[in-house]
Amino acid sequence: MTVDVVRALSEVLPAESLVTDRDVLDAHRHDQAEWAPSGMPRVLVRPASTEEVQAVLRVASALRVPVVARGAGSGLSGGANASEGCILVSLLRMNRVLEVDRRGMLAVVQPGALNAALKAAAAEQGLWYAPDPASWEFSTLGGNLATNAGGLCCVKYGVTGDAVLGLEVVLADGSVVRTGGRTVKNVAGYDLTRLFVGSEGTLGIITEATLRLRPRPPRATTLLATFPTLVGAGTAVSDIMATTRPSLLELMDRTTVRAVESWKPMGLDVQAAALLLARSDAGGAQGEEELGLMAAACERSGASFVMNTPDEAEGELLMQARRLAFPALEQQGATLLDDVGVPISRIPELLAAVERIADQRGVRIGTFGHAGDGNMHPTVVFDRKDPEVMARAKEAFDDILRAALDLGGTITGEHGVGSLKRAFLSAQLGPETLRLHHTVKAALDPGGILNPGKLL
Amino acid sequence: MTVDVVRALSEVLPAESLVTDRDVLDAHRHDQAEWAPSGMPRVLVRPASTEEVQAVLRVASALRVPVVARGAGSGLSGGANASEGCILVSLLRMNRVLEVDRRGMLAVVQPGALNAALKAAAAEQGLWYAPDPASWEFSTLGGNLATNAGGLCCVKYGVTGDAVLGLEVVLADGSVVRTGGRTVKNVAGYDLTRLFVGSEGTLGIITEATLRLRPRPPRATTLLATFPTLVGAGTAVSDIMATTRPSLLELMDRTTVRAVESWKPMGLDVQAAALLLARSDAGGAQGEEELGLMAAACERSGASFVMNTPDEAEGELLMQARRLAFPALEQQGATLLDDVGVPISRIPELLAAVERIADQRGVRIGTFGHAGDGNMHPTVVFDRKDPEVMARAKEAFDDILRAALDLGGTITGEHGVGSLKRAFLSAQLGPETLRLHHTVKAALDPGGILNPGKLL
Ligand SMILES: Cc1cc2nc3c(=O)[nH]c(=O)nc-3n(C[C@H](O)[C@H](O)[C@H](O)COP(=O)(O)OP(=O)(O)OC[C@H]3O[C@@H](n4cnc5c(N)ncnc54)[C@H](O)[C@@H]3O)c2cc1C
Ligand SMILES: Cc1cc2nc3c(=O)[nH]c(=O)nc-3n(C[C@H](O)[C@H](O)[C@H](O)COP(=O)(O)OP(=O)(O)OC[C@H]3O[C@@H](n4cnc5c(N)ncnc54)[C@H](O)[C@@H]3O)c2cc1C
Repeated sequence: MTVDVVRALSEVLPAESLVTDRDVLDAHRHDQAEWAPSGMPRVLVRPASTEEVQAVLRVASALRVPVVARGAGSGLSGGANASEGCILVSLLRMNRVLEVDRRGMLAVVQPGALNAALKAAAAEQGLWYAPDPASWEFSTLGGNLATNAGGLCCVKYGVTGDAVLGLEVVLADGSVVRTGGRTVKNVAGYDLTRLFVGSEGTLGIITEATLRLRPRPPRATTLLATFPTLVGAGTAVSDIMATTRPSLLELMDRTTVRAVESWKPMGLDVQAAALLLARSDAGGAQGEEELGLMAAACERSGASFVMNTPDEAEGELLMQARRLAFPALEQQGATLLDDVGVPISRIPELLAAVERIADQRGVRIGTFGHAGDGNMHPTVVFDRKDPEVMARAKEAFDDILRAALDLGGTITGEHGVGSLKRAFLSAQLGPETLRLHHTVKAALDPGGILNPGKLL
Repeated sequence: MTVDVVRALSEVLPAESLVTDRDVLDAHRHDQAEWAPSGMPRVLVRPASTEEVQAVLRVASALRVPVVARGAGSGLSGGANASEGCILVSLLRMNRVLEVDRRGMLAVVQPGALNAALKAAAAEQGLWYAPDPASWEFSTLGGNLATNAGGLCCVKYGVTGDAVLGLEVVLADGSVVRTGGRTVKNVAGYDLTRLFVGSEGTLGIITEATLRLRPRPPRATTLLATFPTLVGAGTAVSDIMATTRPSLLELMDRTTVRAVESWKPMGLDVQAAALLLARSDAGGAQGEEELGLMAAACERSGASFVMNTPDEAEGELLMQARRLAFPALEQQGATLLDDVGVPISRIPELLAAVERIADQRGVRIGTFGHAGDGNMHPTVVFDRKDPEVMARAKEAFDDILRAALDLGGTITGEHGVGSLKRAFLSAQLGPETLRLHHTVKAALDPGGILNPGKLL
């Protein structure tokens, strides 16, 4: 039976699209999720066209073999991890930016194109592709779409899903559907585009996307503020969001600030409970005015220090603190990067809960993230060599998910459920909404061949 | 059997929630779509709670009676029209704004609350609910959600769906699901929220929504420009969109401008091929700067006249031209208001096609609409008393849909498919995507009781 898979595929695909070399398969089993399980794929397929993806899915459907789609494998939830005996479909050969329509303000891309490639192609036309996961230089647009990736600019420009006009998707049975189109507004039929966005390869394989481009924003102004209390920082976040339109609003807690300072000293206040970074790209005098409103919000909320600059280069220096957050924590040990969301009003409570969890579990947790969206990345730092500590680190990771749910939040704001957080999905959704998920999944993938064991 | 429906409902609902008076039923058969068919409902139900909606759907499921949800009945596609013998569910009693959370920047509402009520409640907290269909003073949020209503500010702030964080929905079988939540970012599971948004009551009845609020934007600056050619106006639209972030970008063609001038003379140029209105709410000096960029774009594109003002009151006067567009056309005869979308680069071609159609069919068509989103409302003006003219008006309406499709566009940008445009949906979607729609519909509503004959 397993032999038949490769034979059946070799009958419908050119030889260069099929890889069975064990070392190669092994190298493609995993994404970047620390301890998500993975099996050994039966075969790696590297389709060059939608037709080849269709051919793969027809074979997989006929033989009932699981199919796992894979972009760059940079995911953080095990979503692209192979299941045992699966057909692993790498989209990296379908990597072209097919079209950049300046006057239509859209681009058409293949799924394996890197986010960076689209940003560059758009910039050539004086336009901008907004979505900017920190992995933008090496992750694929297909992966961004399938996880509905976020990033720094979401607070003003939305997540990946907000930039999608239409998709081409190959379904489990090998048929091709096109959702949406080339218009910004479109209410002809159900919004199937958004159903596929964020579905982590469990409903279909995205083979093309029509994405929305925007004008390049004006130069950003930048503010950095530190706060003696978490509540103060949280109040400032709500106030900034209620009175201005930041193009970025990020937070780092004390543990994270200290990690940065001990790795690359920048003179940050290591006594502060939290640090905020905010930007405005309103442009010109308005950018400075927004910065003034943000500074006032920080001061009202008891900031111990506020500095701001209209200069973009100087602003980039301040941004370094945030960019170093995760790498600095990684200097201190093995890490488990969590990803939760809460309503922005409840950020201080989330941070306080995370501090309690760190105490209770006896691990260090540094928290940073997209404060303007309430999307935080508490990062458990631990000693990998000690299995007992590692076990406690995992407990802490799970505690954080529970804390987010207790605060009316979500177990994942942008990294996805993958296989890591499946066990918690029912706690968030409740039985009836979970049932509806299964109904949708069963309707679109009756054989259950698409990325089984992920998300649901 | 039909007697059983009312009896069965009366067993599970309080008497005041049930109406069988024929005059009342008759008054509730229709929305605002000119010639969409409607049947006579068997009964009108006015539930006061989610539980009552559940009770209705349990009865309807058991007896296989169609159920049509209804907000204010202001829809323009026949979506809320009764089918013969259906249970008509008016959500108008569930009309409370349950919560406005200023620090969390969200509101929780019942479906029968008016858009205007939420705008007012948000304003009390210094916040803003963005979506603004022209019907905002009298349409319900449930109706806005079920049609994914657009409006003037979408060009910058998105459509209704972009303002939704979560929904409570009663499914065909009477079960209740909650989608999304209270966070801006959330990738836990499929995006079922967006599946229900725009589904026109065919997948479930929305009984609660959690909606996103924003800071109130700064005062808007306003520009008006006229163009000797359609291509010039179209080029200006693309240029404005590529270089600025307008908070409004509307277009009126010559026929519409003439209708306004002949009804309420404002000194508009009745020779111009098209008129553009644009606004920036960037604020302060940046608002004026954006206006300058917009004016430059218009001049580069051959505008015959450009005027702009930083003053909001003066801007409101200019906006009058646009606000009068549809009522002015209505002065000239019966109207069929169409609603199509094209990529913004193809607006001139759409307008040219509409002119050809008007010629060919011998009817007058005034076109106005949301140019920044490529969403246009060609409005056929005709003499209702002459059946032959009326038939040609309908032909013209359909020709416009075909023209939009030929240009890579959509048969509806914001008014929905309802019963009016069903016949054209397959032309837009193609057989496989249409099949997927039916798959989804059958999975969620296996008995086919929810708004049958609409959308699909
Ligand atoms: C250093 C680093 C920083 C990151 N920063 C961010 C961030 O700021 N914001 C954020 O949201 N995420 C971030 N991520 C995680 C993020 O999910 C991924 O970077 C990215 O979106 C995944 O793209 P990929 O091409 O690597 O997809 P993969 O990891 O290969 O796949 C991700 C998921 O998508 C599915 N998939 C991939 N391609 C397709 C397709 N064509 N059709 C259907 N399904 C498909 C896979 O099956 C899998 O479930 C980061 C990761 C790293 C390593
Ligand atoms: C003068 C005028 C101007 C308009 N301007 C605009 C505009 O600028 N932009 C725009 O997009 N539209 C516009 N519209 C049309 C628009 O669709 C409606 O105004 C509005 O969104 C519908 O709200 P309603 O409460 O009247 O819904 P209804 O007309 O009652 O219903 C509309 C659809 O939603 C369904 N529905 C209603 N409530 C629920 C619920 N709780 N759960 C599930 N389904 C439900 C109905 O079954 C129906 O399919 C305009 C209409 C008029 C008359």
